[in-house]
Amino acid sequence: MDQVRIAGVGQTPFGKYLGVGVRTMAEQALDAALLDAQMEVGRIGAVYFANALSGLITGQETIRGQVALRHTGLMGKPIINVDNACASGSTALHLAWSAVASGQVDVALAIGSEQLTHADKAVTFAAYASGVDVEEREAQDRHAPSDRSVFMDIYAERTRRYMQRSGATPRDFAMITVKSRQAASLNPLAQFRTPTTIEEVLSARMVSEPLTLPMCSPIADGAAAVILVRGAASAASRRSVYVRSSTLVSANADGVDPVCAVRAANGAYEKAGIGPHDIHVAEVHDASAPAEIMLYEHLGFAGRNEGVRLVRDGVTSVGGSLPVNPGGGLLSRGHPVGATGLAQIVELTTQLRGEAGARQRHGAKVALAECSGGNLGLDSAVAAVTILSV
Amino acid sequence: MDQVRIAGVGQTPFGKYLGVGVRTMAEQALDAALLDAQMEVGRIGAVYFANALSGLITGQETIRGQVALRHTGLMGKPIINVDNACASGSTALHLAWSAVASGQVDVALAIGSEQLTHADKAVTFAAYASGVDVEEREAQDRHAPSDRSVFMDIYAERTRRYMQRSGATPRDFAMITVKSRQAASLNPLAQFRTPTTIEEVLSARMVSEPLTLPMCSPIADGAAAVILVRGAASAASRRSVYVRSSTLVSANADGVDPVCAVRAANGAYEKAGIGPHDIHVAEVHDASAPAEIMLYEHLGFAGRNEGVRLVRDGVTSVGGSLPVNPGGGLLSRGHPVGATGLAQIVELTTQLRGEAGARQRHGAKVALAECSGGNLGLDSAVAAVTILSV
Repeated sequence: MDQVRIAGVGQTPFGKYLGVGVRTMAEQALDAALLDAQMEVGRIGAVYFANALSGLITGQETIRGQVALRHTGLMGKPIINVDNACASGSTALHLAWSAVASGQVDVALAIGSEQLTHADKAVTFAAYASGVDVEEREAQDRHAPSDRSVFMDIYAERTRRYMQRSGATPRDFAMITVKSRQAASLNPLAQFRTPTTIEEVLSARMVSEPLTLPMCSPIADGAAAVILVRGAASAASRRSVYVRSSTLVSANADGVDPVCAVRAANGAYEKAGIGPHDIHVAEVHDASAPAEIMLYEHLGFAGRNEGVRLVRDGVTSVGGSLPVNPGGGLLSRGHPVGATGLAQIVELTTQLRGEAGARQRHGAKVALAECSGGNLGLDSAVAAVTILSV
Repeated sequence: MDQVRIAGVGQTPFGKYLGVGVRTMAEQALDAALLDAQMEVGRIGAVYFANALSGLITGQETIRGQVALRHTGLMGKPIINVDNACASGSTALHLAWSAVASGQVDVALAIGSEQLTHADKAVTFAAYASGVDVEEREAQDRHAPSDRSVFMDIYAERTRRYMQRSGATPRDFAMITVKSRQAASLNPLAQFRTPTTIEEVLSARMVSEPLTLPMCSPIADGAAAVILVRGAASAASRRSVYVRSSTLVSANADGVDPVCAVRAANGAYEKAGIGPHDIHVAEVHDASAPAEIMLYEHLGFAGRNEGVRLVRDGVTSVGGSLPVNPGGGLLSRGHPVGATGLAQIVELTTQLRGEAGARQRHGAKVALAECSGGNLGLDSAVAAVTILSV
């Protein structure tokens, strides 16, 4: 496998941008990534386009990438449309990395764009609800509430199990949201940039016991793009960032341990020849606040039932020794599904370049991104882990 | 690049199977391919799952592959969901080939499954209609007929232009359908196996001038699977079939010549080191009967405006020197969108093995599959060409 370098990254602001559209946001993220890479669009040899839910939001069910990119210089190139729910962007990155690492192309683009807001909020929630086995869901519950995401009920159930075994409390989860808003206040591209307090989070509207609204990732629109190239930079004017490994797995057939995030992480560590203790900064799939704490354990940052310690001790806050979601995570940067996995890479690249300003993890040399997607049984349907380093 | 061999192929019968579902058909195609390969499912290292329209048919918008394959031994593996409209299956094959050829995995599965029939036919047509730039379509025509595919209007317009420049007539297009039904009558997995006549085709209901109903590919359900492995067979009990090249391109930004099928074919010929005259048998994207004749020219089987000669002279019929769509093509084998590109590979593998029975092209050693997808401007949005040989 050849060395794969991140030549450029780009991201739109995340937030509610009703009517802006997948195309406009994709164009903006592409332009930003090309500018960052100081590259002409013609050098890109293959495009991996991530979008999870447009079919149910706008009716653009197929050829989403070709439609979004039709007015760019990418037309004519191979454009591969991929989906893996919340891990769609990570899947695009995985394929782009594979194409470059294996020598198929010299330059590959992974790009994700998602418009989730819709004039009718029920349309958005219905789209989210497709991230499970739809047939099973319909058979189990023909009276499912349509005014909220089925996912938060799933996360809530996982959280209650986790609380029982670990002793974690709603206060711990609120601390995750507080930490997340604090980080996002330092990220101009984030959706929620106003700091909050534990009390505010705990007293907010209950979505699904014990998850209050600020413990749940919001609906967002946005796009992100990552350009990968083969080999080292010829004249590095800034610190070069490399993809050390990328692992993608699906849930086990029985949907039980080891959950797919654990298997994806173990695979990525092994291929990169490192372990959890080598990671300086991470971006993880905090679709709900408790999920981040569980992921500390899945990724090996903490032992079983010890994830809460990291947040209680401030280890994973901006300024801590292992900042997690310094860009704000899904909770506060926002979660435009197909773009999320690539926004993680944008943040970690910025961190490894030492360009993250007030939210910089000083001396960051190795970073990890984890993204899960969908749900099958008791596990996510898919998980992807990417390890980057300078 | 390593040599990539087709270890096994499998296909369900194509036809209208209301209520059977994407999962059941995928399982059947997978089982057939594993049996054909004499392989345990555990050897498969990566899965590329093709489906174009489930989001709008069943609401399963995301993690389609994980949901379809959740009861198979493939869970735990990387599952990558891809879409490229009618070329979705070809895109899955392209990625599987890339993964094996570049040494990322030893064994890869490309599988496509599509349930298009729905109790409400308008749902199916609405899904088809997403294969264009939906925003543009809605802006152009807020009163589009919903009782038929927008695609046949597009194909009809292309056909009228082609007739004007080439002198082709509706009778020529009817001959394509007659040829197609004749081939399908010899393929037990095909949807329409009853031979027809030129008069029947010409006098059938007009869908969009000059296309009558039998000149349009039908709605179908079905699945197909192809297992690819690295290197030559250790003990070949039958003729081995190899993927010589696979090329995927998108439409040019201006949507004009050279159309993407031409560029995909030229790329595939160049990489395989052969030309159109070396092809013994082909499967092409005959979404409408005239499209097949135009493709003869795009693929270099005939000169400009000379495509009709091949069908008039019987060259491309079963029994001719260059049979095209000997499995029945989209017109008669049926067109379950995500499965179609892989069904082409199933047919060509069968031909190259010399196992196609009464529809065998004797002495077939080199084969070509072409599949286009979606529509942008005057061209398809995407085209894929695969070259196989013994």
